[in-house]
Amino acid sequence: MENALSQNIGFMPYLVAGSQILGIAVLAITGAWLSQYRGGFSWSGPLQFNVHPLCMVLGMVFLCGEALLVYRVFRHETKRATKILHGVLHVMALVISLVGIIAVFQFHKANGYADMYSLHSWCGITTFSLYILQWIIGFLLFFVPGVAYTYRSRFKPLHEFFGRALFLSSIATSLLGLTEKMFSDYSQRPAEGVLVNTLGVLLVVFGAVIAYILTREEWRRPPLPEEQALSMDFKTLTEGDSPTDQ
Amino acid sequence: MENALSQNIGFMPYLVAGSQILGIAVLAITGAWLSQYRGGFSWSGPLQFNVHPLCMVLGMVFLCGEALLVYRVFRHETKRATKILHGVLHVMALVISLVGIIAVFQFHKANGYADMYSLHSWCGITTFSLYILQWIIGFLLFFVPGVAYTYRSRFKPLHEFFGRALFLSSIATSLLGLTEKMFSDYSQRPAEGVLVNTLGVLLVVFGAVIAYILTREEWRRPPLPEEQALSMDFKTLTEGDSPTDQ
Repeated sequence: MENALSQNIGFMPYLVAGSQILGIAVLAITGAWLSQYRGGFSWSGPLQFNVHPLCMVLGMVFLCGEALLVYRVFRHETKRATKILHGVLHVMALVISLVGIIAVFQFHKANGYADMYSLHSWCGITTFSLYILQWIIGFLLFFVPGVAYTYRSRFKPLHEFFGRALFLSSIATSLLGLTEKMFSDYSQRPAEGVLVNTLGVLLVVFGAVIAYILTREEWRRPPLPEEQALSMDFKTLTEGDSPTDQ
Repeated sequence: MENALSQNIGFMPYLVAGSQILGIAVLAITGAWLSQYRGGFSWSGPLQFNVHPLCMVLGMVFLCGEALLVYRVFRHETKRATKILHGVLHVMALVISLVGIIAVFQFHKANGYADMYSLHSWCGITTFSLYILQWIIGFLLFFVPGVAYTYRSRFKPLHEFFGRALFLSSIATSLLGLTEKMFSDYSQRPAEGVLVNTLGVLLVVFGAVIAYILTREEWRRPPLPEEQALSMDFKTLTEGDSPTDQ
């Protein structure tokens, strides 16, 4: 059975490795850009702004991407352990992106800048609000014990769709943020422009690779042998859906 | 069999209707924005720029979105007719977006503006180049007669993934274009800003609704009874994949 599982996933390991290289490259370039061209990081003063892009890319893009991959990558761990890892990554993503959002609002306030006028801000606040909603519903349905398996398996496809949609929407919002930050002297900063555009393209490729991995249905984590047996028992007991159907 | 098909697709008709209302709203708001706030359209002079956003939203977003839905919406037409409609929509999308790209390069040249410095231009040219590549490969594989069904069914999932990825990437590129156009006096144009941000959010929702319809595997167009019979014959003859497997 172990062998059959390993054979089934084809070139997925290479794509996962590629996604990790892309993710680390995205974080490194974001850090390098903000340090080299924008003066680095500080919680007070004019450098507070720079905390925003760093935290959002780390939280809403990198960590959310990692959380989406967890069930594809950890195929031989128990479902419980994999689910806890998924949750821990999303706790980190939530806290870090909240810090990033507080940073930009505090920075705007300190400098008397207008809030929420741009498409970036609209997309960002919508994505983050829906992410919190997804977080609450996901927690109640999949972490709180005692929720019927039929409810879980009915809502799982929606949870997956919204998770992926919010991840892609976070990437699109990042691209808008990069564009906004580069105006209005974009064409007069060619070196920084090339760095930022490269970052944008790498963000898109990171999103595309992860989206591709997730669309391959046959790369889903199959239930472990012991979960399968358990699933049978429950099925017989409840005549409902399988607890290992994830 | 007809009834079974109709029952199977659940609330898909409402989502399709919603996508059409969103698509028409997006086109109407794009036209209204460029007419009311940006002086309208003309092929020569300063208004040539405005041809660009209109053509790109019509070609790369609206018509490509329609082309993606064709196999879900036309469930009782022959596969051949559905495929021709998919092709015709993509011919229109290609020609119209080519006009839009020519418009912006001619406008830049006439005014001595720099080309290709922004993330919007990088994402746009990458998306359009990959769209042409997808077009050529799709034409050779699925329209030229005589290609083995095994090749077609092997490449179909990749064709579908790249089609969806390029559609979503076109939407992200549109949002970047809207942001770019609004700088650098974005916060000083509150009324136009709200209109453009609304357009951006509707573009995202249009993309999300179509993406959702396409991710529901059970909403795929099933083979018609006569295609199914044909498929059986071919399967027996070739021991390969089914010609109706789409």
